[in-house]
Amino acid sequence: MRFVQFDWNGRKAVGVEMKEGGDIVDVTEVDPTVPRNMRDFIQGGAPNLTAARNAVSSGHFILKRENVKVLAPITNPEKVLCVGMNYKDHCEEQGVPVPEEPVIFSKFNSSIIGPEDDLVYPEETKQLDWEVELVIVIGKTAKNVKEENAMDYVFGFTVAHDVSARDWQFKNGGQFLLGKSMDGFCPLGPVIIMKEDIKDPHNLKLWTRVNGEIKQDSNTDQLVFKTSELVAFISRFMTLKPGDIILTGTPPGVGVFRKPPEFLKKGDVVEVGIEGIGTLRNKVV
Amino acid sequence: MRFVQFDWNGRKAVGVEMKEGGDIVDVTEVDPTVPRNMRDFIQGGAPNLTAARNAVSSGHFILKRENVKVLAPITNPEKVLCVGMNYKDHCEEQGVPVPEEPVIFSKFNSSIIGPEDDLVYPEETKQLDWEVELVIVIGKTAKNVKEENAMDYVFGFTVAHDVSARDWQFKNGGQFLLGKSMDGFCPLGPVIIMKEDIKDPHNLKLWTRVNGEIKQDSNTDQLVFKTSELVAFISRFMTLKPGDIILTGTPPGVGVFRKPPEFLKKGDVVEVGIEGIGTLRNKVV
Repeated sequence: MRFVQFDWNGRKAVGVEMKEGGDIVDVTEVDPTVPRNMRDFIQGGAPNLTAARNAVSSGHFILKRENVKVLAPITNPEKVLCVGMNYKDHCEEQGVPVPEEPVIFSKFNSSIIGPEDDLVYPEETKQLDWEVELVIVIGKTAKNVKEENAMDYVFGFTVAHDVSARDWQFKNGGQFLLGKSMDGFCPLGPVIIMKEDIKDPHNLKLWTRVNGEIKQDSNTDQLVFKTSELVAFISRFMTLKPGDIILTGTPPGVGVFRKPPEFLKKGDVVEVGIEGIGTLRNKVV
Repeated sequence: MRFVQFDWNGRKAVGVEMKEGGDIVDVTEVDPTVPRNMRDFIQGGAPNLTAARNAVSSGHFILKRENVKVLAPITNPEKVLCVGMNYKDHCEEQGVPVPEEPVIFSKFNSSIIGPEDDLVYPEETKQLDWEVELVIVIGKTAKNVKEENAMDYVFGFTVAHDVSARDWQFKNGGQFLLGKSMDGFCPLGPVIIMKEDIKDPHNLKLWTRVNGEIKQDSNTDQLVFKTSELVAFISRFMTLKPGDIILTGTPPGVGVFRKPPEFLKKGDVVEVGIEGIGTLRNKVV
């Protein structure tokens, strides 16, 4: 199933997207006990998934896509974890070796915006850059899990645009936070696809287009540390919770490493997408 | 007023500590509409403060301290911001110049524990270290605020122990996150004192004791960037929300810079305290 959070005439709830870009089944309408926000929905586990399946198979409660605003599929994860330097081809682009262990940093969840929301250009940067990323969504509480069991703790996958202010990312004592966590710096969605419904998360095309022009064009088969390694690694340090998200890193083609460097400006439209999941389309304003 | 979150026979609520270490007035009991968690309490603003004042002046609803477990005063802030290298004497200790701008990093709120909770020694580190810090608690939504108005957006102050795994803080691509955000790495409390009830937040003694022995002993008059500068600076990048907390940095005397270096071990009792606010006492287990 392909889960969304949506707004229909001011009513916000959890739904199922029937196919990529298709109509939305309103899960909460078929069963009012189903939570209306994704974090609670995921945390609730099996009963919510059963309700969602029943809603879909009922053939009712279908909202036409054009009448619905699709929101970020989760807005209040306890943790937004990010992985740096995690594509082989992105490391080659920079002429650096692949890291020996995952490099972990974070964004605040306050930077999450929806798949079609405007991205407000912050006054503080002159180097606004793009990054398409595959996102792991945690399904169950995970601490010290082994790599071979790590997928049991994964709910599914989504897409993020890891917007980055390069000037701030690479100063401020070397800490990435300010350059990664400005308001609006995490467009997310449009759906969370269940892991069972994706054939191989490590063989998916992913791309970035700016004003229609391809800037990033790679495949998740270039990931250095894969889903199960990332979940196992992070869970050595902290307890992962249902709804936590892990942005797994970006392939080559980001603006800062282009020759000459390119950055976003007001008016640009950025599309980041992953095969089989969906595309985010955010205008810089 | 000195606000706490407490547990009394399994009932969790917001209360007022009558004096440092004293009995607790149960604010929720005098007015059931008052939120039972601090983030909502702060966000609710003036009506909640009025209810708290009424509860205190009523002379009723007083719980004996020995019957109450005082919890971390806030457990779910949207953002836990931290400031590095922010004490003049701490910079001198390391032989480095004071930074030109605040160095900002973060912890996850999942690392918050209470003022008397055990700190579980993580398997992943061999260099567990202490840091006492004055904490700013945001009271109102703040974006792009000026330094001269910044105190309008501050609710009050509390104390944090910014527990740090030095081995992980200084590797992992130079990103502090893993070394700062392990489970249990943010003992917090015991109270949030309103800014109106603290004479000068920039002239307070603060200290760390390990097994009774003084390790850090300084004064917040050594802060490089003060409260209003920090709030104004951070609000240039992101919207601060009620309940967000800013750990303002630590003075000299941390273990890693001692000669020879000293680190915490299981069985140690760490007390970190700030004059007029209170003391955290966490046993390493």
